[in-house]
Amino acid sequence: MQLNGIITLLTDFGIEDEYVGAMKGVILGIAPHARLVDITHQVAPQAIGEASYLLGAAYPYFPPGTVHIAVVDPGVGGERRAIAVATPAAVFLGPDNGLLAPVLQAEREQWGERAEVRELSNRSLWRAAVSSTFHGRDVFAPTAAHLLNGAPLADLGSVLEEVHPSTVQPPRSDVHGALHGEIVHVDRFGNCISNITRRHLKDAGLSGALRVEIAGQHVAGLYTTYSAAPVGIPIALIGSSGHLELAVREGQASRALTVVTGTRLRVAAASG
Amino acid sequence: MQLNGIITLLTDFGIEDEYVGAMKGVILGIAPHARLVDITHQVAPQAIGEASYLLGAAYPYFPPGTVHIAVVDPGVGGERRAIAVATPAAVFLGPDNGLLAPVLQAEREQWGERAEVRELSNRSLWRAAVSSTFHGRDVFAPTAAHLLNGAPLADLGSVLEEVHPSTVQPPRSDVHGALHGEIVHVDRFGNCISNITRRHLKDAGLSGALRVEIAGQHVAGLYTTYSAAPVGIPIALIGSSGHLELAVREGQASRALTVVTGTRLRVAAASG
Amino acid sequence: MQLNGIITLLTDFGIEDEYVGAMKGVILGIAPHARLVDITHQVAPQAIGEASYLLGAAYPYFPPGTVHIAVVDPGVGGERRAIAVATPAAVFLGPDNGLLAPVLQAEREQWGERAEVRELSNRSLWRAAVSSTFHGRDVFAPTAAHLLNGAPLADLGSVLEEVHPSTVQPPRSDVHGALHGEIVHVDRFGNCISNITRRHLKDAGLSGALRVEIAGQHVAGLYTTYSAAPVGIPIALIGSSGHLELAVREGQASRALTVVTGTRLRVAAASG
Repeated sequence: MQLNGIITLLTDFGIEDEYVGAMKGVILGIAPHARLVDITHQVAPQAIGEASYLLGAAYPYFPPGTVHIAVVDPGVGGERRAIAVATPAAVFLGPDNGLLAPVLQAEREQWGERAEVRELSNRSLWRAAVSSTFHGRDVFAPTAAHLLNGAPLADLGSVLEEVHPSTVQPPRSDVHGALHGEIVHVDRFGNCISNITRRHLKDAGLSGALRVEIAGQHVAGLYTTYSAAPVGIPIALIGSSGHLELAVREGQASRALTVVTGTRLRVAAASG
Repeated sequence: MQLNGIITLLTDFGIEDEYVGAMKGVILGIAPHARLVDITHQVAPQAIGEASYLLGAAYPYFPPGTVHIAVVDPGVGGERRAIAVATPAAVFLGPDNGLLAPVLQAEREQWGERAEVRELSNRSLWRAAVSSTFHGRDVFAPTAAHLLNGAPLADLGSVLEEVHPSTVQPPRSDVHGALHGEIVHVDRFGNCISNITRRHLKDAGLSGALRVEIAGQHVAGLYTTYSAAPVGIPIALIGSSGHLELAVREGQASRALTVVTGTRLRVAAASG
Repeated sequence: MQLNGIITLLTDFGIEDEYVGAMKGVILGIAPHARLVDITHQVAPQAIGEASYLLGAAYPYFPPGTVHIAVVDPGVGGERRAIAVATPAAVFLGPDNGLLAPVLQAEREQWGERAEVRELSNRSLWRAAVSSTFHGRDVFAPTAAHLLNGAPLADLGSVLEEVHPSTVQPPRSDVHGALHGEIVHVDRFGNCISNITRRHLKDAGLSGALRVEIAGQHVAGLYTTYSAAPVGIPIALIGSSGHLELAVREGQASRALTVVTGTRLRVAAASG
């Protein structure tokens, strides 16, 4: 694959420390012409499932040949492996703790076996001194930079057949044809984004008016825009990432519904 | 106009979601050599007037040929238009909800009719699939990138004669020669920045010692530096953007005065 | 020295205002090909010692020839000088208020007199209009950009022999061989980072099991990784910047121990 020089960064490191800056310094020291793009560093500390969602919502908008680093890593310094997921269109680097499982599944649906997984085990691509607490700086950043400089994927380490499973279960159908899922992210506007996608709804035959049950309340949908919705009333719509989300026009759905990441929801036909 | 390759981004999208990263991915997919600069993404949600102030305080410091994207967009997906304000020195892209009215007024004072407005209506410059909730990613980002690639302004859409008026009224004088305005932004240090500029004061003949009335309190000015001020006492000065602001040395004026964005103030000669 | 085109930015300006964006606009207007990297802008307002720590933790990861701007500047507009610390490997620009004293000391240990200090006094390298409140934009940003364009160090201003001392005292030993220091930064994860480094411990002969006394509590160390530690119990370890820090696995040490920046600690042999 021809890389395009872009490296994205998605972590739970926050922006109040030197951590992200140090990663960028390491990258630019190896690959001076890397173009660095922050996705977010505000993933809730150690929230692996939220990181998977945000990565999945962002990476399709980057051009082919982008390298994505995603580090939410409570097991750093322990037994967990570091991995790369590589496809003909992108490379993803991160800890093998479930974070990259959803992207691997999605890429396998598109690319089949051309989406491969490798363990990062080649220390010659890392910083000489690897700390036990900051593999973002010492393992993932230099590996990404060496890939930009032309290091072949085969140099990263050996192929793995399996990765650690996702920390978030996929939606499931019940005997009434309804879908059960959970909230995977609450955004800045208080919109509550679920793991149920447009495609899940289609596959479940949920195409007309819907009723969402969450936290003991009922929410109607699907609306097509925020501006078409009544002010102040929770509604359901398909958000910009293709996921079912709950929103309140000129308000915060998370507050109105008392919903947080992890809250479960059920989606059924409105007539059901 | 010759563009310089810089695109700035100013939104209320925050930094905890994937929204800004997705915009940048779209831009770099079309214009790989764009240089992206964040102004801020922390505009209070849907605070159009605050966005206008921040854009006006930042854009004069960018070199000629910069493209500025500003998206605070409560009406996204509804009837509001998307527009470009183009001058011989810069292009501004955003929703037509008042956000760009102050910059248009300022640029018209400098450039006259050479500062023109166009409706963004050419879907061939947008992403193929336009969501109803995220025009930052699907309309404004790709349009900016196509401009960098050489798309002529005339391709954006037809010329508009008027834009939606600003959501913030300009300062006005009373019969006593005092100026009435409002706080348009509270910064990280608690400085309370008004819509009254150095030029407004000059035009009103307010050149000597001043007395600011705000929230039932009196504040003296103008001080020339924070370090010249007494510690802990609210003062008035002209801040770095040329606007009258209230500050407390080693303190927070917003707390000391109980002032928020939107609080009104009156500025008079100290002897008046 | 050959500069590499990278300029890093470390300030207490936050990200909710236009301040950082305006600095970047000024830099790119003078040096269009500058590569700008944010270290952090979330230093606590006017916390000079914290800024020194974060700069010291970040800059060693940048390649030779990087220019670092660090601005935490409560005395802006007053009598304090603006300075550059220049070595054969990097240039540091900031106010002379103690912020750059630790980096000067560290660089002098490596480079001796080849690490020099100059006062920034050459107004031809500044913006034409210098505000009294925002030297980040009007002095430090343009000076860094002119350096990238080839301005020689000698043009900055005259050599200084001394700088304002650090606002944080170095660790000291007591008669029992224990080290006394203080917390200089609390990171996003609640880790409490001290001014005691791996080298301070070695020089004090503290090489085995240690006992840290802080805020009336005892903490054991050194652990080598977070994942080797018991869950929920405060531990001591050497963090990724080489400093002794207190951490709680799956928790926040700052909350568990009621520790803030400035809290003092004592480190002794566990048997002592």
